[in-house]
Amino acid sequence: MNSIISYYTTRFGELWDKSLGDLANEAFKGVLQNAALQKENIDAIFVGNMLAGVVEDRLLLSAFLAQLFDTNVPIYRVEGACASGGLAFQMANQYLRSNKNSTVLVLGVEKMTDVSGPDITKALATAASFDEQVAGLTFPGVYALIAQYYLNKYRYTESNLAAISVKNHIHATYNKEAHFRRSVTIDNVLESSYIAYPLKVLDSSPISDGAAALILTNRPDLIKKSKSAHILASETATDTISLSKREAIDTLKATVISGKKAFSCAGISQKEINLMEVHDCFTIAEILALEDLGFWEKGQGGHMAKDMVTHRDSGNNLIVNTSGGLKAAGHPVGGTGVKQIGEVYLQLTQQAGARQVKQHNFGLAHNVGGSGGVAVVTILGV
Amino acid sequence: MNSIISYYTTRFGELWDKSLGDLANEAFKGVLQNAALQKENIDAIFVGNMLAGVVEDRLLLSAFLAQLFDTNVPIYRVEGACASGGLAFQMANQYLRSNKNSTVLVLGVEKMTDVSGPDITKALATAASFDEQVAGLTFPGVYALIAQYYLNKYRYTESNLAAISVKNHIHATYNKEAHFRRSVTIDNVLESSYIAYPLKVLDSSPISDGAAALILTNRPDLIKKSKSAHILASETATDTISLSKREAIDTLKATVISGKKAFSCAGISQKEINLMEVHDCFTIAEILALEDLGFWEKGQGGHMAKDMVTHRDSGNNLIVNTSGGLKAAGHPVGGTGVKQIGEVYLQLTQQAGARQVKQHNFGLAHNVGGSGGVAVVTILGV
Repeated sequence: MNSIISYYTTRFGELWDKSLGDLANEAFKGVLQNAALQKENIDAIFVGNMLAGVVEDRLLLSAFLAQLFDTNVPIYRVEGACASGGLAFQMANQYLRSNKNSTVLVLGVEKMTDVSGPDITKALATAASFDEQVAGLTFPGVYALIAQYYLNKYRYTESNLAAISVKNHIHATYNKEAHFRRSVTIDNVLESSYIAYPLKVLDSSPISDGAAALILTNRPDLIKKSKSAHILASETATDTISLSKREAIDTLKATVISGKKAFSCAGISQKEINLMEVHDCFTIAEILALEDLGFWEKGQGGHMAKDMVTHRDSGNNLIVNTSGGLKAAGHPVGGTGVKQIGEVYLQLTQQAGARQVKQHNFGLAHNVGGSGGVAVVTILGV
Repeated sequence: MNSIISYYTTRFGELWDKSLGDLANEAFKGVLQNAALQKENIDAIFVGNMLAGVVEDRLLLSAFLAQLFDTNVPIYRVEGACASGGLAFQMANQYLRSNKNSTVLVLGVEKMTDVSGPDITKALATAASFDEQVAGLTFPGVYALIAQYYLNKYRYTESNLAAISVKNHIHATYNKEAHFRRSVTIDNVLESSYIAYPLKVLDSSPISDGAAALILTNRPDLIKKSKSAHILASETATDTISLSKREAIDTLKATVISGKKAFSCAGISQKEINLMEVHDCFTIAEILALEDLGFWEKGQGGHMAKDMVTHRDSGNNLIVNTSGGLKAAGHPVGGTGVKQIGEVYLQLTQQAGARQVKQHNFGLAHNVGGSGGVAVVTILGV
């Protein structure tokens, strides 16, 4: 069975002194070292990156990395906006399913802070549809429309959303690679500036630099000698790029479909998952994720969020975003999907250090591109 | 065994009245119709595209296409510069190797003529290394350095290169989808304007719009009822992005490695290949391809080119670029790798119409990204 045997992440944050190459190289070397492997042991590399072509004139990242890593193996660059990392992992898992005795490396990397705020916002908006771009909608605006709809429909207030941010910021205080390692209060969130009503600065994930890498293998000898987690499922689905073309805007159909496929493939149910990293690019997105993945009834998420039932110290059986999520651990877009799976791997294999929660057997990672145009759901087991 | 069962290509050219979506949609519908399949028969879509993010602010092409095609299946966008199409095919073949009874669609698409000449040249140069970009080197310049080196080393003249262009233009006269359907003479090529010495306008592939699509399956029932070609091998390798970091600049190591792997995987030798589409982005590149793939000794290609030994009417056993190649059939970058494989498929299955050559059993397609930072070699058989 395909297994993860190593993980490494750089710090996430505004890393002014690191280039895309520096970040990629640190993650590449780190993940090999953690596995006690050499680059010669790697048969192929899958790279998730969204923006290098747009913000730093760098396409053909595969050859750039081949030179940096001094290798001639196949390197695949996959782009699916903020799901680029999850997709790279999903393809790597496919690759292993058709190549016995193989070992592959998945790298997610993004360098976002070398351009201005407006420029990076515009670059991110290239993952929106043209009707949205032309209307001046950037991603905070798109998710704000979803949040308005959700709050109105189920009669919640902004404080229901704010609780997601508070929980994830608390989780991030345990994570030394997190972009933000400080807790915030409900009042802090509610008093922060509006970006697009009802979403405020503290409802939003930051613009981060960072890279994360995983090593996957189906070689029994490597699995045996490593702290390993099995890949029970990694599934993806697509949906319309335009919010306006959806049947319902408070459901991400790509999440629903990929989640169902992943649970079916893994042969387990929601009840058996105790640990998840979900795509909380904005606070509303974490609520939708739990609903769309079948953990909560539609409309129930606002209550659950406010009660912080997925807090690490809640005593409940489902903990969400132990890393701090995109919100507080940071969101270097190509890196995020890889980090999410890495966090689940660390927790399941009891390597999560200060943020380790109790032993669990199954974990899930959920990565979204755009406003839900693509989603990837991965389930790991030990 | 994985097989190709359908192919469709749009016209290649300056298609002012067609958008990227129009081209993608035409190829998608055309390839389904040629296979007498519905979109519901397709399990996943692999898309090769280089430039949509850079030239038209369109990332997350997967969701854009999901909306256009009205589907929720997995869609993977792969970027490897001018090898994007070949890589999408290579990944689709991997997918089928790990998914029984599946059918996938490969789409290569590029819309290049909506921006100015200098802008598209700059966009293409994002696949070069930073040292080359900073030095003002665009791809004609990079290949010109290779051509200068080659001509000097083996004591050839520009007319040796020109013969490649003449042959490919003749081949394109048989191809109704070609960007250029007129023949040129050696003198025409030699008298055309220099782009970067020794390469001239008529040594260079054009800036084209276009899309091409293939359907691949491992379902025996679909293979049986279709004109099908088996995928004997599809392999890729990487190399340095910078020309200056190579051991030799007249050898594309990525071609050498992927070629060797493909022949080994297919279990046949060069002698058994009678039909090839190779990556002639510039005339020199076709010569290097034949040498690097082991058909000609290094340095011999100049003579072979001048004698037009791979011309369709040469009476020899190896015909190269029956489509007209990138040079004359056109080079919509994401579309090229898919079109190359499609051309080999049509020829092997006797569906090539006016440009049909005699019956052959094996064919090869060779697709390159950048100045050789990545290459894909695919071998088909009937």
